[in-house]
Amino acid sequence: MALYVHKYGGTSVGSVERIEHVADKVKSARDAGDDIVVVVSAMSGETNRLVDLAKGITDQPNPREMDVLLSTGEQVTIALLTMALQKRGCAARSYTGDQVRILTDSAHTKARIRHIDVDAMRNDLKAGRVLVVAGFQGVDELGNTTTLGRGGSDTTAVALAAALKADECRIYTDVDGVYTTDPRVVDRARRLDRITFEEMLEMASLGSKVLQIRSVEFAGKYNVPLRVLSSFEDGPGTLISLEEETKMEQPVISGIAFNRDEAKLTVLGVPDIPGVASRILGPVSAANIEVDMIVQNVAADNTTDFTFTVHRNDFDRVKQILTEVANDLGAREVRGDSAIGKVSIVGVGMRSHAGVASKMFDTLAAENINIQMISTSEIKVSVVIAEKYLELAVRALHSAFELDEPAESR
Amino acid sequence: MALYVHKYGGTSVGSVERIEHVADKVKSARDAGDDIVVVVSAMSGETNRLVDLAKGITDQPNPREMDVLLSTGEQVTIALLTMALQKRGCAARSYTGDQVRILTDSAHTKARIRHIDVDAMRNDLKAGRVLVVAGFQGVDELGNTTTLGRGGSDTTAVALAAALKADECRIYTDVDGVYTTDPRVVDRARRLDRITFEEMLEMASLGSKVLQIRSVEFAGKYNVPLRVLSSFEDGPGTLISLEEETKMEQPVISGIAFNRDEAKLTVLGVPDIPGVASRILGPVSAANIEVDMIVQNVAADNTTDFTFTVHRNDFDRVKQILTEVANDLGAREVRGDSAIGKVSIVGVGMRSHAGVASKMFDTLAAENINIQMISTSEIKVSVVIAEKYLELAVRALHSAFELDEPAESR
Repeated sequence: MALYVHKYGGTSVGSVERIEHVADKVKSARDAGDDIVVVVSAMSGETNRLVDLAKGITDQPNPREMDVLLSTGEQVTIALLTMALQKRGCAARSYTGDQVRILTDSAHTKARIRHIDVDAMRNDLKAGRVLVVAGFQGVDELGNTTTLGRGGSDTTAVALAAALKADECRIYTDVDGVYTTDPRVVDRARRLDRITFEEMLEMASLGSKVLQIRSVEFAGKYNVPLRVLSSFEDGPGTLISLEEETKMEQPVISGIAFNRDEAKLTVLGVPDIPGVASRILGPVSAANIEVDMIVQNVAADNTTDFTFTVHRNDFDRVKQILTEVANDLGAREVRGDSAIGKVSIVGVGMRSHAGVASKMFDTLAAENINIQMISTSEIKVSVVIAEKYLELAVRALHSAFELDEPAESR
Repeated sequence: MALYVHKYGGTSVGSVERIEHVADKVKSARDAGDDIVVVVSAMSGETNRLVDLAKGITDQPNPREMDVLLSTGEQVTIALLTMALQKRGCAARSYTGDQVRILTDSAHTKARIRHIDVDAMRNDLKAGRVLVVAGFQGVDELGNTTTLGRGGSDTTAVALAAALKADECRIYTDVDGVYTTDPRVVDRARRLDRITFEEMLEMASLGSKVLQIRSVEFAGKYNVPLRVLSSFEDGPGTLISLEEETKMEQPVISGIAFNRDEAKLTVLGVPDIPGVASRILGPVSAANIEVDMIVQNVAADNTTDFTFTVHRNDFDRVKQILTEVANDLGAREVRGDSAIGKVSIVGVGMRSHAGVASKMFDTLAAENINIQMISTSEIKVSVVIAEKYLELAVRALHSAFELDEPAESR
């Protein structure tokens, strides 16, 4: 007998009919003889409805009160799903974040989980009950309701799986797994049977929106096998686990990630003296703007060029900040470009294979695509190119690294 | 500096605009220098929306899960009202029933309050905060969410006022006080400045819907002065308090209550032997049907007639039950009439005044209204008459007992 944590997101529980469907899935999993803990989000649309109510009152709602408000969304879902399970003769009990005692810090709207009390849950499981737990929410030491921020229900599911030492944490979504790249761009994209935590982190951080980064980190840290599956169709999904389990047949590259959310800024002719990088980036991070790729070339003529990328929404503000900074530094010029795209190849296999990066560059060169920036980690290579070449680059790389689904299997 | 508990019902917090209006009222009460605890209901319509969701899943929702579901309604309101107060620069904090620790028994959907922990609230009040507390909900010893049943928010407000020894509990509603009778029937009905707990209990139980009976009982038991006021208009409302404070100028009769929700059933020719009443009413109460007035006349010819009233919705079921019972008892016949109305005069003054009942009967006789049943308590006399005479009877009695608003003051 295994213990599984299931997580169903807002779309999967978006109506009474869909909640009934989830109850069917949970019941048949339970009938197969396994212990089940279900984590659910608010019904889709509900969180927006609550946010709109708050916005009707103030643009700057108090974070503590925002948490009290938003946590009602998941609470509604746990009650309804529990009723639906009980109607099917499946013993079940609902738990809010407070009741299950998901103890967090007091950082309202973005709290971090500190501890989960599993004794009550274990007793319920022993009594044969399915536990239905509200995702996204917890309680601090003073008894205040907290929420975990965006994608918090995934985090709740993984944290419960870790605390209960579950055999697997199953994230049910509206896609049937993790793909080698976005199927909307490459129609021969393949669903991956397996991927490592590290690869998934790179894929997620590079724009694949299937799972929240934080929940993948959490799963990796506590070695909780994560599986992404469809709520609506049957299928094996994609298992995200430790490298060891997947290494045997690991291809060099697991997937191609990309995004077009970024903009590029360059400060030209910066004096090549110590402390320059922090004098440029300090004011940017002080404005709470996140910086992604950073590239600085070797100096020539005692000056250097400093380039980095930010989210496209922040482009105008950063340009303004840099213009002041460039003046202070005596730099020559600030240039910016928001029509860029970032493409990354990801795979633990590249650690032991030379030539992965050069194969990437060759492939792009063969398509006459100019590379503007390069940044690498142990398991990924990212390049920035002109946005107009983005789809072409992704398709060319997907094919070059042999990720395309074989024609006969389609 | 006094301490007031305010309670605002669903209509008073039915939209963002109305919540803003309540925030204005609370803020000006706070600015006057008093400590304020506010109890709120779910926004009007919200509870029905939640009930409909549950009904979409099952006709027999588990009571524990129903409480988890319904308690979200009040939780939304406390967050929104607290935000609205904070926007006005008024320090405030929201509390769920669990957080304020309104400890109840475990009778889900109709829990009774056992204890309220006031230490945290006292600290908040000392710190200058307005407390915004979710009505209708509590928590049992095991940490399960409970709800208090219909009108539960009034009960919460009175219980908090009692626990905090508040100077007054102010129930804001959509009427501006307690009237001598329903102004829709008698256009010269008057708002009462004061009324005793006992009188209010009789008025409420006889069909005046301003306050929940349970909250009045609670207020009387702990001697919490209750005031009913309008959320929408300024005015003194009606103070409900102990008899001593109001006796001085107490008129004989405070008000005329009436309802047309009842039906009358009579078992004719019942053998006059001990235990007959319980053999008749036992099966009725076993079917969970509440009985209101009960009249049994003295026996003649060793048989008697036994009459009682029930809610009109239960009429058919009770008639069926009685037909069986009458057979077993060898009674002659079962008769029923659902076209009846009940009219009651209420007033603590009648204790010391003879002739109140006979004045009532005279007044009805003068209008040619036949009395079908009579029942009395120390502070009220109720009669059952044909439904068609109900308004006529109320107006005649209102005038006879000098309750009409003087013409010059209108």
